[in-house]
Amino acid sequence: MQAGAWMSKKRCRIGVVAPASRMSAEVAERVPALAGSLYPDRPPEIVFHPQCFASHGHFAGDDETRAHAFLDIANHESFDAVWFARGGYGSCRMADAVMCRLTQPARRKVYLGYSDAGVLLAALYRAGFEAVAHGPMAQDILRDTGDAAVGRALAWMVDRSPEALEPTVGRVEKTAAFNMSVLSQILGTPLQPVLDGHVLMLEEVGEAMYRIDRLLFHITSNAAIRRVSGIMLGRCSRITPNEPDFGMNEEEIARYWCLRSGIPWLGRADIGHDADNKIVPFGSPP
Amino acid sequence: MQAGAWMSKKRCRIGVVAPASRMSAEVAERVPALAGSLYPDRPPEIVFHPQCFASHGHFAGDDETRAHAFLDIANHESFDAVWFARGGYGSCRMADAVMCRLTQPARRKVYLGYSDAGVLLAALYRAGFEAVAHGPMAQDILRDTGDAAVGRALAWMVDRSPEALEPTVGRVEKTAAFNMSVLSQILGTPLQPVLDGHVLMLEEVGEAMYRIDRLLFHITSNAAIRRVSGIMLGRCSRITPNEPDFGMNEEEIARYWCLRSGIPWLGRADIGHDADNKIVPFGSPP
Repeated sequence: MQAGAWMSKKRCRIGVVAPASRMSAEVAERVPALAGSLYPDRPPEIVFHPQCFASHGHFAGDDETRAHAFLDIANHESFDAVWFARGGYGSCRMADAVMCRLTQPARRKVYLGYSDAGVLLAALYRAGFEAVAHGPMAQDILRDTGDAAVGRALAWMVDRSPEALEPTVGRVEKTAAFNMSVLSQILGTPLQPVLDGHVLMLEEVGEAMYRIDRLLFHITSNAAIRRVSGIMLGRCSRITPNEPDFGMNEEEIARYWCLRSGIPWLGRADIGHDADNKIVPFGSPP
Repeated sequence: MQAGAWMSKKRCRIGVVAPASRMSAEVAERVPALAGSLYPDRPPEIVFHPQCFASHGHFAGDDETRAHAFLDIANHESFDAVWFARGGYGSCRMADAVMCRLTQPARRKVYLGYSDAGVLLAALYRAGFEAVAHGPMAQDILRDTGDAAVGRALAWMVDRSPEALEPTVGRVEKTAAFNMSVLSQILGTPLQPVLDGHVLMLEEVGEAMYRIDRLLFHITSNAAIRRVSGIMLGRCSRITPNEPDFGMNEEEIARYWCLRSGIPWLGRADIGHDADNKIVPFGSPP
């Protein structure tokens, strides 16, 4: 990777885009204020692309608008990081249009997000981008103690701070992290990432236990995914009621499918749809 | 296919098993009563495997119990049909154990079900079974006008009645039908069916519009699925609220993904999670 702001200590320039759902306006006020307080001497410049506030049905602008906004930031020389505004849904609709139009400056940037943005992380990582990471997004500032999540994201983008990392990172050769539903929905498509030899961390939010079971069936039944070096389970939050009670919890389910598929079970990961969500770089640690 | 009860007019013997969730006890009273009234001269014998009433957390018995029950019926010489009791969730957990233990008598039977049972329909069809069909299950008798659904299932199992068929069947070379979520969750696994040249009918129940969009992204982005001869959209019922409004309905979504993927859009199919659900044999019509 080439030297960026995080090595030169010049002011870091972060561009925020929303490839899926619309970002809350409040985020664009609170995040720069927090950044200013955390980095009084060298506040990162955080540019919210106007597309973050656009609206088109479910999405933050139509597919083309979202793709253009992503490319505006990713292909621009002046930005050090592409930071995803939030998740929701929509990245799969514009991933193809983005990937075929990325230019050389895009390769020098860090990309940070999770949840639905995992579709783009997968596509970028598959295309050989070296600084793709799973971690907090701008809209996380609206969570309880969300300042900690955004502070962690900034610490990664500005300084590559090791304290921001999920503790397993650096102790193993390669890592990747996904929301289970998002990974499931790119399996068997050209966006499926190659994760041979990676520790794969998986988290989920807002699903019933039978769906977590079905998702882990799907993920662990894929021949290519079986070449991961192991699976770690992040937090599964806001699990919806299962009728009747499923009879196993999410860790028992993950252990079950690891056993059945022959994938090593490696325990719990410190990721999830919450303010404690730690950074997981894709591939080897930088 | 060898001659069965439907050709010889001997009494048809139907075995009911529950590979996923538990069947309601009421079904085992109402279905034979209906069958008796529909076929007064030659009532089909409907045998509910005791496993239909078993309970193990989410499931109608544990994985091994469900697999054994399926094999009891499928491998037994005396049965003409394996009829799935109901959907829910669980077939993916016992499909492997079943498929490696099926014997020759299993190949002579008709298999009928939908929803979660689509996992087994896919596995059986992939293994070359010739009388696999998507259609009503025993528990459908509990729906409003559910007698019509069960009557249709019986008409298919007992007489191969053409009136039971989805109207497109017979007008095209090959057909297959699935619940979108169920097909999505076997894509990229050894259970993925080979559907080259088939008209693929898809239905959904109880999902938000953004999830229908994501499912159709997933399905139409799979290279093997792109070799279907076209997609028809069944009914999408009990769609849950989308926040904000998605901006497209299910047909607009299906047309969108057909256009993007180059899969011919062939209109609406008469299938769904309802009493009107018509029979769709897998492959060429019998």
